[in-house]
Amino acid sequence: MSQMVRIALDAMGGDHGPAVVVAGAELALARHPESEFLFFGNTALIEPLIAERPALKSASRCVHAEVAVRMEDKPSQALRYGRRRSSMWLAIEAVKKREADMVVSAGNTGALMAMSKFELKTLAGIERPAIAALWPTLRGESIVLDLGASIGADAEHLVDLAVMGAAMARILFGLERPTVGLLNIGVEEVKGLEPVREAGRILREAQRPDLDYVGFVEGDDIGKGTVDVVVTEGFAGNIALKTAEGTARQIAEYLRDAMNRSLAARIGYLFARSAFAQLRERMDPRRFNGGVFLGLNGIVIKSHGGTDAEGFAAAIELGYGIVRDELLAKITAALGRAEPEPRCALGGAAV
Amino acid sequence: MSQMVRIALDAMGGDHGPAVVVAGAELALARHPESEFLFFGNTALIEPLIAERPALKSASRCVHAEVAVRMEDKPSQALRYGRRRSSMWLAIEAVKKREADMVVSAGNTGALMAMSKFELKTLAGIERPAIAALWPTLRGESIVLDLGASIGADAEHLVDLAVMGAAMARILFGLERPTVGLLNIGVEEVKGLEPVREAGRILREAQRPDLDYVGFVEGDDIGKGTVDVVVTEGFAGNIALKTAEGTARQIAEYLRDAMNRSLAARIGYLFARSAFAQLRERMDPRRFNGGVFLGLNGIVIKSHGGTDAEGFAAAIELGYGIVRDELLAKITAALGRAEPEPRCALGGAAV
Repeated sequence: MSQMVRIALDAMGGDHGPAVVVAGAELALARHPESEFLFFGNTALIEPLIAERPALKSASRCVHAEVAVRMEDKPSQALRYGRRRSSMWLAIEAVKKREADMVVSAGNTGALMAMSKFELKTLAGIERPAIAALWPTLRGESIVLDLGASIGADAEHLVDLAVMGAAMARILFGLERPTVGLLNIGVEEVKGLEPVREAGRILREAQRPDLDYVGFVEGDDIGKGTVDVVVTEGFAGNIALKTAEGTARQIAEYLRDAMNRSLAARIGYLFARSAFAQLRERMDPRRFNGGVFLGLNGIVIKSHGGTDAEGFAAAIELGYGIVRDELLAKITAALGRAEPEPRCALGGAAV
Repeated sequence: MSQMVRIALDAMGGDHGPAVVVAGAELALARHPESEFLFFGNTALIEPLIAERPALKSASRCVHAEVAVRMEDKPSQALRYGRRRSSMWLAIEAVKKREADMVVSAGNTGALMAMSKFELKTLAGIERPAIAALWPTLRGESIVLDLGASIGADAEHLVDLAVMGAAMARILFGLERPTVGLLNIGVEEVKGLEPVREAGRILREAQRPDLDYVGFVEGDDIGKGTVDVVVTEGFAGNIALKTAEGTARQIAEYLRDAMNRSLAARIGYLFARSAFAQLRERMDPRRFNGGVFLGLNGIVIKSHGGTDAEGFAAAIELGYGIVRDELLAKITAALGRAEPEPRCALGGAAV
């Protein structure tokens, strides 16, 4: 496959702005040479950083944006001052105009979702986009969605999430018929919220060829990797994600503390150094950085705002894999609705 | 303080029944000699186990129950066959009759809640009881509720949870004015579910003397120990708890795996053995076993069904601390409603 993947980057997003975005793009380019980058932001800041990196320079273009969306603003505020002139808006617009295949931003999540919905619109029949991400498990990786884009969900929305998540799993994990579970507070059919039970009934009866619905799963099934796709409404999904992150940090802290308590432990640590390095790598949140906004007419990747170049590169690569395998066309087909325009179509608005 | 704490035990509950319940009671008695136990269940199974333990024997009484509630049954089924004759029912009834100060069961959670509500009734103004538990944090311990007793919550219910959780924190942590946070998907006031925001407004404006409301907290704040009491609706609370348990098990597995990968790592493990033992103890879920049903006219403790004697003892001890400090009277006073009868009153039904 020789076609280039064109990546729009909101260079001003995140806690560290262009420094991390440019360095992250350089790392991603080294791993995927068929990439082209479109940086949006303050060119006075971005261009010198790109100039230092010859390989990146020859694969990049810079577009000036006079405004950067602030991390702490409400979506409505960001839309007011950032419309048509912020780096975030312009980067999304590049996807809309088919000048880019995807956009990555480490900026304000709410603003990114609002602008993405505004510019790209949702897929036919999808009212509310979702955020999906890879979750490390004892069996490898699973996809969990929604991680907080929408709060509350009816049965139909949960079914849409199942279908979109399964399409993502088919692409990223190379599975024919990924297993899907609905997150609930018990595995019995009588348990939990009515929309969850109703979605379970719909999925069970549908016997879809594109996903294997296995029933309800509980919070501890996520880490076990019981299913390829865990479907939940955004409030519970976000709380699950943050709780897992908090628990991982807490245990890492306990471990550090234990290894510093005695001389014997410090000696032991030295011997087991490479084992600890391996553990650290396995638990490294940067490897799993990047949430995909699903349900939009375009691919939008949200990177964690506080990540470094390595983490930002992971977010780019997540999008790269999705674009390469034409996730959007597969989701649209799975939803049984109109096909989106092919991604190579040039010019013209998507909506 | 010389008064005895009288503990009713559902000896047939849990995956291991009397073996764990009796051994757990023996451990708890050794730590708290002012305990008296009332075992309910199949005396043919229980009495021989007690007879082997002289200290326990002199502090125990056994009451035969012909039926044991099955772990997999729905609450309605359990009520049908277990009413008035199951070990669970009779143990709860001992609290109702003031023959015991608390009841501990490792049995079917739904059945335990249904029977507890049926027999003990809820406190005035409380419609739905909650499950509260201790959660280990980087700062020590916090109380998290509701962990799954009720699904969905309006603002009033969340405020009641805050008040009940704070009363528990005052007793168990010895705090004057525990800090309380509402679990949400962002700390900004505009974020999240409407009942959560409304509960936040009520708590902020109330400026209660018995709790210090600090605002919204996120999933990762639980493990950090940002607040003494984390309040959430039961669906999200249960998912947070199970997700944290799953993450802890996953990391323990990673760690075990890493320490077995090479000879150097295994040598390191030997040196750091006591550090690992300390870590294991800190992460030991048995230490935090036991959920308290809050909002009932009586103290009911739910132990994990799969725990061992050590874990069951921890559940008993949790209840012990609560009874000693008269949690119920404090909750009732904090809710500003009628006082319950003092726990030493003998005979007569509570409702």
